[in-house]
Amino acid sequence: MICFRLSLIILFFLKSSDFVSGQFHTATYSPDRHIEVHLITELNGEFTYKVIFKNKPVIHSSRLGFSLNKPQVDLTRFKIISTDTSSYNGTWKPVWGEVSEIKNRFNQVKIRLQDLNKTDIVVDLTFVVYNDGLAFRYEFPDQKAFKHFIIKEELTQFALAADNKTFWIPGDYDTNEYLYNTTLLSEIDAISAANKEKDIAVQSLIGPNAVQTPLMMKSPDNIYINIHEAALINYAAMHLVLDKSSNTFTSHLVPDVIGNKGYLETPAKTPWRTLIISDKAEDILSSKMILNLNEPSKIENTDWIKPQKFIGVWWEMHIGKGSWDLASGKHAANTENVKKYINFAAKHGFDGVLVEGWNQGWEDWFGNWKEDVFDFVTPYPDYDMGAITNYADNKGLKIIMHHETSGSATNYERRLDDAFKYMVKNKINTVKTGYVGKIIPRGEYHDGQWMNNHYLRVAAKAAEYKIMIEAHEPSRPTGLHRTYPNWLANEAARGNEFNNAPSLGITPEHETILPFTRLIGGPMDYTPGLFHFKLNQFDSARKTKVRTTLAKQLALYVTMYSPLQMAGDLPENYEVYPDAFQFIVDVPVDWDDTKILEAEPGDFLTIARREKGKENWYIGGITDENSRISRIKLDFLDMNKQYIATIYKDASNADWDKHPEAYVIEEKIVSTKSELEIVLAKGGGFAISIKKNEK
Amino acid sequence: MICFRLSLIILFFLKSSDFVSGQFHTATYSPDRHIEVHLITELNGEFTYKVIFKNKPVIHSSRLGFSLNKPQVDLTRFKIISTDTSSYNGTWKPVWGEVSEIKNRFNQVKIRLQDLNKTDIVVDLTFVVYNDGLAFRYEFPDQKAFKHFIIKEELTQFALAADNKTFWIPGDYDTNEYLYNTTLLSEIDAISAANKEKDIAVQSLIGPNAVQTPLMMKSPDNIYINIHEAALINYAAMHLVLDKSSNTFTSHLVPDVIGNKGYLETPAKTPWRTLIISDKAEDILSSKMILNLNEPSKIENTDWIKPQKFIGVWWEMHIGKGSWDLASGKHAANTENVKKYINFAAKHGFDGVLVEGWNQGWEDWFGNWKEDVFDFVTPYPDYDMGAITNYADNKGLKIIMHHETSGSATNYERRLDDAFKYMVKNKINTVKTGYVGKIIPRGEYHDGQWMNNHYLRVAAKAAEYKIMIEAHEPSRPTGLHRTYPNWLANEAARGNEFNNAPSLGITPEHETILPFTRLIGGPMDYTPGLFHFKLNQFDSARKTKVRTTLAKQLALYVTMYSPLQMAGDLPENYEVYPDAFQFIVDVPVDWDDTKILEAEPGDFLTIARREKGKENWYIGGITDENSRISRIKLDFLDMNKQYIATIYKDASNADWDKHPEAYVIEEKIVSTKSELEIVLAKGGGFAISIKKNEK
Repeated sequence: MICFRLSLIILFFLKSSDFVSGQFHTATYSPDRHIEVHLITELNGEFTYKVIFKNKPVIHSSRLGFSLNKPQVDLTRFKIISTDTSSYNGTWKPVWGEVSEIKNRFNQVKIRLQDLNKTDIVVDLTFVVYNDGLAFRYEFPDQKAFKHFIIKEELTQFALAADNKTFWIPGDYDTNEYLYNTTLLSEIDAISAANKEKDIAVQSLIGPNAVQTPLMMKSPDNIYINIHEAALINYAAMHLVLDKSSNTFTSHLVPDVIGNKGYLETPAKTPWRTLIISDKAEDILSSKMILNLNEPSKIENTDWIKPQKFIGVWWEMHIGKGSWDLASGKHAANTENVKKYINFAAKHGFDGVLVEGWNQGWEDWFGNWKEDVFDFVTPYPDYDMGAITNYADNKGLKIIMHHETSGSATNYERRLDDAFKYMVKNKINTVKTGYVGKIIPRGEYHDGQWMNNHYLRVAAKAAEYKIMIEAHEPSRPTGLHRTYPNWLANEAARGNEFNNAPSLGITPEHETILPFTRLIGGPMDYTPGLFHFKLNQFDSARKTKVRTTLAKQLALYVTMYSPLQMAGDLPENYEVYPDAFQFIVDVPVDWDDTKILEAEPGDFLTIARREKGKENWYIGGITDENSRISRIKLDFLDMNKQYIATIYKDASNADWDKHPEAYVIEEKIVSTKSELEIVLAKGGGFAISIKKNEK
Repeated sequence: MICFRLSLIILFFLKSSDFVSGQFHTATYSPDRHIEVHLITELNGEFTYKVIFKNKPVIHSSRLGFSLNKPQVDLTRFKIISTDTSSYNGTWKPVWGEVSEIKNRFNQVKIRLQDLNKTDIVVDLTFVVYNDGLAFRYEFPDQKAFKHFIIKEELTQFALAADNKTFWIPGDYDTNEYLYNTTLLSEIDAISAANKEKDIAVQSLIGPNAVQTPLMMKSPDNIYINIHEAALINYAAMHLVLDKSSNTFTSHLVPDVIGNKGYLETPAKTPWRTLIISDKAEDILSSKMILNLNEPSKIENTDWIKPQKFIGVWWEMHIGKGSWDLASGKHAANTENVKKYINFAAKHGFDGVLVEGWNQGWEDWFGNWKEDVFDFVTPYPDYDMGAITNYADNKGLKIIMHHETSGSATNYERRLDDAFKYMVKNKINTVKTGYVGKIIPRGEYHDGQWMNNHYLRVAAKAAEYKIMIEAHEPSRPTGLHRTYPNWLANEAARGNEFNNAPSLGITPEHETILPFTRLIGGPMDYTPGLFHFKLNQFDSARKTKVRTTLAKQLALYVTMYSPLQMAGDLPENYEVYPDAFQFIVDVPVDWDDTKILEAEPGDFLTIARREKGKENWYIGGITDENSRISRIKLDFLDMNKQYIATIYKDASNADWDKHPEAYVIEEKIVSTKSELEIVLAKGGGFAISIKKNEK
């Protein structure tokens, strides 16, 4: 690891706090010098940045600053106190991930600013420029007259250089489970888009021009730009509000009910504001900048943290075969039924079985803003916790706990220790949390500072108990799984379950957008693997359907990266297609290497990954509603070795709408010189396992 | 115990939900028939009550009802479904208290009402009438179409029959630490009164005509009326807003930040709305109606619950000798200093020593709406917790824990188990909690439903750890110490410490009002016993002073009932007056019997109490800013026995302003036939211990 300091420049030409500087200008470049970031103070004291990629403007001059409620002041006019530049070049190894080693190389400039409004408040702005993008954050160092402060708004701007093609969901304080829209910036209409959604329980919209991050864009000159944030700690999530007249986004933090957007205390720092930039879409997906911007693991011994593949007593409730609650008369989480799942999971080598609806409270849990719904330690009488965990234990697998909080974070926090102790006692070391409904403390939002602290607090406490966690309905991730590697995954977007939602469902292009948006922040528990496409199996009135082919469902295990992968469908549905199911059985959940072979947001995506500690490769390829031909070179394979590729692909008559279950499986001997040409059906995909030829 | 049912009348004359009844009228009487309560439905369906005492109107026809936010409906027009009358006559023994046995006798009528707005919502109204007053509550029984609901406002009215003399403090969602005002109802001006207060950290005023309960009144025809509530559980505190044109108060519940006033689920019940009524002021003070209306103890084994007398490392911080925080350089809670307090407490037979400022965080605790200030388990480095508790233990006394939450209830709740475990580990079984500052969850108020649940949750959890509790800055009590007898006392009003507050301080009449107001709900930790009157002892700039005589400070140990009594002043101040201090050493904190000898709110008060399990009596008498002569008969003493009375009274030159420390002590042989005549100075008082003459 190398870290050397280039320079520390104290700018003496500024004499008094009333003195507005002449124009200040400094530029910082990515190590490969493709990205240049210019920092400029305007004559009126405004501090701005602009970004150029390969000599093309990406971000025009954009203002930085803050508006505070306490003290009541706008921090928008500054003088420069000092600048400090440095570089870093190193690597680190994630506990689990898409690759076994991550390169972290950037140039940095840190500028100390002082407010010109006579408050003397000092703000540090740090810009880091990588080959794959840039990031910046505000820091409020320890200072005498500025200790506790309340944020009214962060005033960060992103003045885009063109009316980019944009993949967006409506800005919303409470949910990120929207279907993605693809329009020009000028065509964004978040309210209309949100109003089409009938299946989202709690919506708290911001306005017609507000969208969420990760925001993916493509400029008219084919530059791919992704705006997000990294290391969201003790801060509200950042949404973006567009000024259409100038293609300029301004940050919009999620408030509390009073309208305050953050309660901070110096020394404090904001999350990193990130821009991943490339002229290749593939580079956006392979970027590790978000992870690099997060702090290293706070957990010292990580031996107990394991990526997992699991099945769940879950989908049968969604499609009406069973139910979460006992009063329904079709309670799915009963001992006998759970044992069937365990048998199936054990037979096929899964790591665990998620059981939802195991605990009392589901008769009256939803939509009532009720504080004390669940206690997280009381099973329904037909669920024999001891017998079930022992049964699973004897078969070498784990039960995955489910903690639905119904949005009542206060209740969950006060019961958290007991809940985790109960898990430990029952040999359960992974929990799926859920936050369906309006938040309690009432008035807080899912994406506000208080709840972001809550999610992190739960993950940190889980680590104390050596418990792994994935959260459903939290704010979208920002790479914190580097710092808390027990926080394996999140939902935080529209998952596969929305195929069963009657209004918009999931469009075939959805899975080609998610890796460029939601997954930029971290792994998603997308719950792929649905093999039964018309969802009226147990409820003939149901009109919902899964809008992919079966082969595409397999591909998602590779394209939708997560260390926690569920086989979403029912055991009996898998038993109809045992040969196809074999891919789900085989596919790993941890990787040594990843190659993004081809990608275009909204259109298609092909990814190859090498199994952790093995020489096997797995490839997933998907398309949107259009059929396409994928031509891939296997030049990432080991030279001079032969492999057997098992290709799971759409049959010639496959089509997400008419013949989703039509697939073919073929085996091929392949090597580093092989090229494959695979036809993907409309809404289709393919999955390939490539194992070393031992014959 | 006797409980018999008088009648159950189902009213068949009402046929359909659209049918508005003819006038319904029923009357219920107190067992002694002095109080009559008339329940009447008006022709428009409004349900009203009125109250008559000894043939004089006390409450004119007053409407009852609710306004809901969910479902959005006003419950103000009803039909009568049934009425059910019963009587009760029994007694019960409190774990501790002013008397060893409490009589509970009332007549009851329960009326089932159904909403006429086609919602079919059923509401039960229960009225209970005692000899000393009446109470009523709303119940929302379990019903199919009405499960979760949100209160917009409770519409209970109290239409007073006259422009009564009233002892009031401004209605405020966050504080009850106001000085009392004495005016006619028509002269209430809460905003002006509140604006005079400069020493209250967080004020959330309701409006010019809003006041708090317990509200004490005296009618022009000399009827004493006290309005309050009992058993405040899962509900917001009730304040009262006056319509001056009709002398009518309407309930005003404390909202959450959204404006909702309660989240309930059937079956649900409101607290009791209470009216204590008598033509003798003494009867108001001896009423046990509030306790009777609360549920019996939920704690089965109460052996560990003990009334206590203690001193504290506390006042020296208030008057500037020491400080809570270490950074001040005069940290009071250091091992050496605390040992001095322990020595003093042990020498004089106290039960415990309260230590404030023992734990880290005080450098930055106040006024910043900061969530994580204290962790409740980390002493300052100069405070050797183990050494101190052992030192106390060896001398047979206990340290009293201090948990200042700075209003951050969320932080306290998540650390509560650890905090209580730390206490148990350190042999500490009493905690003084504090809620100074704006509440977190941000937007909640001290007196709202969420915080009322919090206070009770803390008390209930404390009981699990066999910990006794007193809360500072909670909402005012409503008799819940019957149900949780480990919840010994509260502050919840302007305590003696306000003598050190520069703006209004404490007037000499304050202590003659508190027993009629704040103490109606339960014991107060008033911290009497200040012996040094000019508070510039350690800070010559300080202009504050204690506005009583020394003898009155002694009297407060009897007049200001609490099972938890502090000797507020510094050991060195007590050592100046060892003979007077002897009364504080002698006075018990638990009683078998209590006699209110004379009382007039705002003027004077004399109370005699018999020590628990002993034949000794203690008398306290106080006056306001006027001198007076108290003439008391000792006819409550045992016949044919002789006693020695030690009388601590104002010297002839005593005066709260000029010679507060002038007192005389005299001994007298007394018997049941004795009459005492004692002169009280301006702002003065007297204290008497009466012990059996063993000579």
